[in-house]
Amino acid sequence: MLTDKIKPDTAALSLIREGVRHMQGYVPGEQPIQTDLIKLNTNENPYPPSPAVLEALRAITSDALRRYPPPMSQPLRTCIAEIYDVPVSGVFCGNGSDEILALCTRAYVEKGRKIGYFDPSYSLYPVLASIAESDTVEVTLGDRFSWVDPPLDAGMDLFFLTNPNAPTGMRFPMDRIALFCERFDGVVLIDEAYVDFAEEDCLTLCRRYANVILSRSLSKSYSLAGLRVGYAIGSPALIQALDTIKDSYNLDIVAQRLAVAALTDQAYMQNGVRRIRKTRAWFEKEMIARGFALYPSETNFVWCKPPSGLSAPLYVEALRLRNILVRHFTAERLAPFVRITIGLDTHMEQLLRETDAILEEKHD
Amino acid sequence: MLTDKIKPDTAALSLIREGVRHMQGYVPGEQPIQTDLIKLNTNENPYPPSPAVLEALRAITSDALRRYPPPMSQPLRTCIAEIYDVPVSGVFCGNGSDEILALCTRAYVEKGRKIGYFDPSYSLYPVLASIAESDTVEVTLGDRFSWVDPPLDAGMDLFFLTNPNAPTGMRFPMDRIALFCERFDGVVLIDEAYVDFAEEDCLTLCRRYANVILSRSLSKSYSLAGLRVGYAIGSPALIQALDTIKDSYNLDIVAQRLAVAALTDQAYMQNGVRRIRKTRAWFEKEMIARGFALYPSETNFVWCKPPSGLSAPLYVEALRLRNILVRHFTAERLAPFVRITIGLDTHMEQLLRETDAILEEKHD
Repeated sequence: MLTDKIKPDTAALSLIREGVRHMQGYVPGEQPIQTDLIKLNTNENPYPPSPAVLEALRAITSDALRRYPPPMSQPLRTCIAEIYDVPVSGVFCGNGSDEILALCTRAYVEKGRKIGYFDPSYSLYPVLASIAESDTVEVTLGDRFSWVDPPLDAGMDLFFLTNPNAPTGMRFPMDRIALFCERFDGVVLIDEAYVDFAEEDCLTLCRRYANVILSRSLSKSYSLAGLRVGYAIGSPALIQALDTIKDSYNLDIVAQRLAVAALTDQAYMQNGVRRIRKTRAWFEKEMIARGFALYPSETNFVWCKPPSGLSAPLYVEALRLRNILVRHFTAERLAPFVRITIGLDTHMEQLLRETDAILEEKHD
Repeated sequence: MLTDKIKPDTAALSLIREGVRHMQGYVPGEQPIQTDLIKLNTNENPYPPSPAVLEALRAITSDALRRYPPPMSQPLRTCIAEIYDVPVSGVFCGNGSDEILALCTRAYVEKGRKIGYFDPSYSLYPVLASIAESDTVEVTLGDRFSWVDPPLDAGMDLFFLTNPNAPTGMRFPMDRIALFCERFDGVVLIDEAYVDFAEEDCLTLCRRYANVILSRSLSKSYSLAGLRVGYAIGSPALIQALDTIKDSYNLDIVAQRLAVAALTDQAYMQNGVRRIRKTRAWFEKEMIARGFALYPSETNFVWCKPPSGLSAPLYVEALRLRNILVRHFTAERLAPFVRITIGLDTHMEQLLRETDAILEEKHD
């Protein structure tokens, strides 16, 4: 470095922590610049957020931007505590639920202890474990991606449990989850990013067990993926540990105020969820009629396998050529499947038409 | 846990990582709810952000909120790269510069290696080191808080160098900084949160040395403390390491768009900085005339010692009773001093009047 005055990137590389140097970061779904695409690849909500959110946005003043925001997002925590009837000290707010998941790896996992999760599940978990330099326990799901009891003696301090699961869209049986939470001696983070679209949530478990913490997101059911707001509910001791290590002002004032507006309008969110579930039910039937194998979704997407003769990658590519984006994962067990976000009825109708055309071509 | 069905917080405590359990988090300056206070305690800018920022805010649509933001803040990075004539691959954007500092502790520091910083300096650094479970090297500044060469053989992988320094407001000599950067074999993070108010910046150093990364903030000079946007400039290898470990979508769409608007209006920022520097020069003279000892500030605050007979805590308390908030630090070496943010001229006039009254009372 002494002699090398022009930026030598090979020298800089040696400055990077060994574990990070060759690490693969998380790869988010494609965000195309092209605007005439039907975008069913990242589980965004097709409906706009509540009008109350836009009102709150317009009401932001210069003075609010100029000053530091409430460092603990106190008004937002109070709002969430009231909605779910939990103490304010049992609520945490994060810069997206991704921040909450990352903080959990730093708050609850001792050096040398492990982080567990199901395989398949949210592909961010192994990345977070790698950043935290924790070994992992991947618990392979059973036939048709069904629940398997995670081991209790594998040295895990934290288990990420997505429910409903992604990318399969299925909810796990409540009694099996509860039994695991009761027996496991580490922290169970139940990632409920999609739970507003499901039949049942795990709020009772985090009331009952001191080692259970829920995380939720405003990205899907509240149509606010652009805003980056997630929250966690758990025992005050678990929450306080997150507070100790979070960035001082982790949520900006705009995100705090707009999140309060969105959460306060529960009726709007629930109405939007009803519409998506209705579209989902209709769309599932249509896909089954076309020979697709479907899994029972409790989310805002469906997980399906194209009929024999049409591979998932070919189907995804054919849709792409017809300006429809859906998501494909290359991991061996996931490769035969396609994940399709539930969009507007018109989007799904268009997708069905293009699917018919693709199936037609295949037979020619 | 098996028998304890009501949330037992003592049980939950054992779930927290040992190092976090008794850790003291960072304590931000007070954000009072009372609105008639003159707030000179957290170095907020007294002028509003550029009108272009408000325009950008009003232009945010439902659709922008509904979709995921650009995960790498690409438009914002491009804007910054153009302003400073650096490659886009040499720019990182963070959720406040605090996120950047925290990421550095995870990107550049091997297990068992240390994190260094000056004492006194930004009080967040030891907290970040503690979260990263890194030992620290505190380099005590010299007489009148002047530069001291940090040791080169102390096992440090990262050195946090605030320039101008806080809470003293003074800039370190460029040649001493450069020599240290050249000789040090770890990463030097030059924290330039206040640099827009200074005579000179260290951009040339990060162009010259592969181990230097700058962090800056929109909180002070751009009047956007509420928005949480910071950026870093450094070699592509250093930047890429931050990208690998950052949260997938670390900046929301509102923060990204408003930051572009603010940065594009350089003339507005520079004009605001000129006004604050003018107020600072005048205010410094007034305080010296009243017997305060002042340090040469290159920031938007002054660091001063009250005249003999008036202790700093008493002065701060007396101002507080008169509805003026300034900042006091209790660490032994800092306790004789007061940090006063430069506000509007009217704020500083009011502070001088109250100071006169306080000094008067003291003599009665």
